[in-house]
Amino acid sequence: MSLGEFDLIERYFNRVHHAADQGPRRAVVPNGDDCAVIAPAAGMQLAVSTDTMVEGRHFLSTVDPARLGHKALAVNLSDLAACGAKPLAFTLALTLPRVDERFLAGFASGLLALADEHDCELVGGDTTAGPLAIGITVMGEVPPGQALLRSGAQPGDELWVSGWPGEARLALEAFRGTLKPPLSGEAFEAARLRMEQPSPRVALGLALRGLASSAIDVSDGLLGDLGHVLKRSRVGAAIALGALPVSPWLASRPVAEQQDNVLAGGDDYELLFTAPAARHAEVLAAGQAAGVPVHRIGLVQAEAGLRLLDGGWGAEGPVGWPTANRWTSFDHFRSA
Amino acid sequence: MSLGEFDLIERYFNRVHHAADQGPRRAVVPNGDDCAVIAPAAGMQLAVSTDTMVEGRHFLSTVDPARLGHKALAVNLSDLAACGAKPLAFTLALTLPRVDERFLAGFASGLLALADEHDCELVGGDTTAGPLAIGITVMGEVPPGQALLRSGAQPGDELWVSGWPGEARLALEAFRGTLKPPLSGEAFEAARLRMEQPSPRVALGLALRGLASSAIDVSDGLLGDLGHVLKRSRVGAAIALGALPVSPWLASRPVAEQQDNVLAGGDDYELLFTAPAARHAEVLAAGQAAGVPVHRIGLVQAEAGLRLLDGGWGAEGPVGWPTANRWTSFDHFRSA
Repeated sequence: MSLGEFDLIERYFNRVHHAADQGPRRAVVPNGDDCAVIAPAAGMQLAVSTDTMVEGRHFLSTVDPARLGHKALAVNLSDLAACGAKPLAFTLALTLPRVDERFLAGFASGLLALADEHDCELVGGDTTAGPLAIGITVMGEVPPGQALLRSGAQPGDELWVSGWPGEARLALEAFRGTLKPPLSGEAFEAARLRMEQPSPRVALGLALRGLASSAIDVSDGLLGDLGHVLKRSRVGAAIALGALPVSPWLASRPVAEQQDNVLAGGDDYELLFTAPAARHAEVLAAGQAAGVPVHRIGLVQAEAGLRLLDGGWGAEGPVGWPTANRWTSFDHFRSA
Repeated sequence: MSLGEFDLIERYFNRVHHAADQGPRRAVVPNGDDCAVIAPAAGMQLAVSTDTMVEGRHFLSTVDPARLGHKALAVNLSDLAACGAKPLAFTLALTLPRVDERFLAGFASGLLALADEHDCELVGGDTTAGPLAIGITVMGEVPPGQALLRSGAQPGDELWVSGWPGEARLALEAFRGTLKPPLSGEAFEAARLRMEQPSPRVALGLALRGLASSAIDVSDGLLGDLGHVLKRSRVGAAIALGALPVSPWLASRPVAEQQDNVLAGGDDYELLFTAPAARHAEVLAAGQAAGVPVHRIGLVQAEAGLRLLDGGWGAEGPVGWPTANRWTSFDHFRSA
């Protein structure tokens, strides 16, 4: 791209030029010097995560640019949420096959709207000519020792998930044309919005600081991500299949499909977390305060491995008949 | 890529597995959770920069993987150097067309050797299938108010450049076969090393804290990058062409080619900086302490614009006949 084209791109992302009404921003030295300089609050530690989205692999070329901008930042904010970190700033590495003003305007609007919503400032960027890819590195702050980790689950803790996982996968399968019966138009649009414009659970992550014993965001499927928590925490778990949250759109689908999507759908960006059973009411209150429903779906156990029970919640946790875990290799057809 | 392939990639980059003899590292929470958590020293501000390198645009497919790993981090550390920031941590977003163990082993060795040299820890990563591209976001620390910026040059300041800019471009033109007469084999290998494995001037950047009034790293060519400093600082400058550093390999080339390469070569990763004339001796001492030669090449002036004089250094600064700046549009043929 020529220098003129880079100027054009910068125009869409440089907030200084078109946001004179904004309050003070995070960057001490803004975008445009060799580095941006940011000042975390005194004594805070820095949570850092990075994610790249590539056309054809993470999104379809037909996606609305504003939704793509939203999602590129959302998946990164979701990692901060899973650590209980407060968003601070992010960098954007954009690889573009050509300068397309319509695309750039839409992409920037979706990206920056979500950034504003979470008070997370774009502090640096880099634009390269090449196949469309979006790389974001996000930084957040968290008080020392308070980051939510994958490694803290304890036997006796309750296992929770936020929102309604499974809808993003429902939309993906609708796009692929694999659903029998097909989705209604209304259900498809709702599921598609969840796939294309997920809401990172930042407020919930903050509310769970000092309350959750472990947390992870569900990006590769609930059971797969739970596996990371169990492995790192050196514990096992039982899940009550009857306690899984099923969204209204999923509820009308065949039961096997419901379970596939909720347990192994992926691309959900919900929080999967554990908390002491004695703090059950506090967890519900945290969800309410954050404006996102939280569902208790299982129990952490000392015995390694995962047990799926086909009932609901009994006096001492999940009940019902053991069900074979047919989702361990479920992930493979995703990349097929 | 399959999960197994991701495990393979992780093996090359996860230091925990093969660096048990290392001392304590920066990350409080290492790579592998949703976020890494790092703890900047108390009261420090954070300098952040991001750069992506794409095959065919920023490097040749035939480059030695270890040199590529080195350079991918070096160009980012160079941005920290230009801000006077101390390297702290970085994230790596790697897009790979296929899993090639030979490539990964070499790339990781070059990358991590330079990271170790600068005590800069790899704290997060993301691997995606796609055309080869390397995205790095680097973080460093700098005391409040001490970051070197592009905007601080003052009339009367001396203008300096480190090292010998121009060699990287010499190698690029040799690869392109445009040089008449051609380079000797020895000169080609030396220049090629400078192009493929530049040394970020981190120690010099640190030594210039509180001493330089402005700084930038030379990545797009000396005059082009100087233009950013002059514009931001709202000043002009005079350059003594006779005071330009010319490396031994460049010295044997035609004079016009020498000037092209030094003034507009690019890919140099030297520091271009200004400092008060009264602190001339301190600047020389800073270069000596950092182990890199520094060359005074010009004078900052109140009058806007850039004046190129064909002589050396007189009693009051650059002397000689004015020379037309034929390098303003020089950059265009680089992307041709």
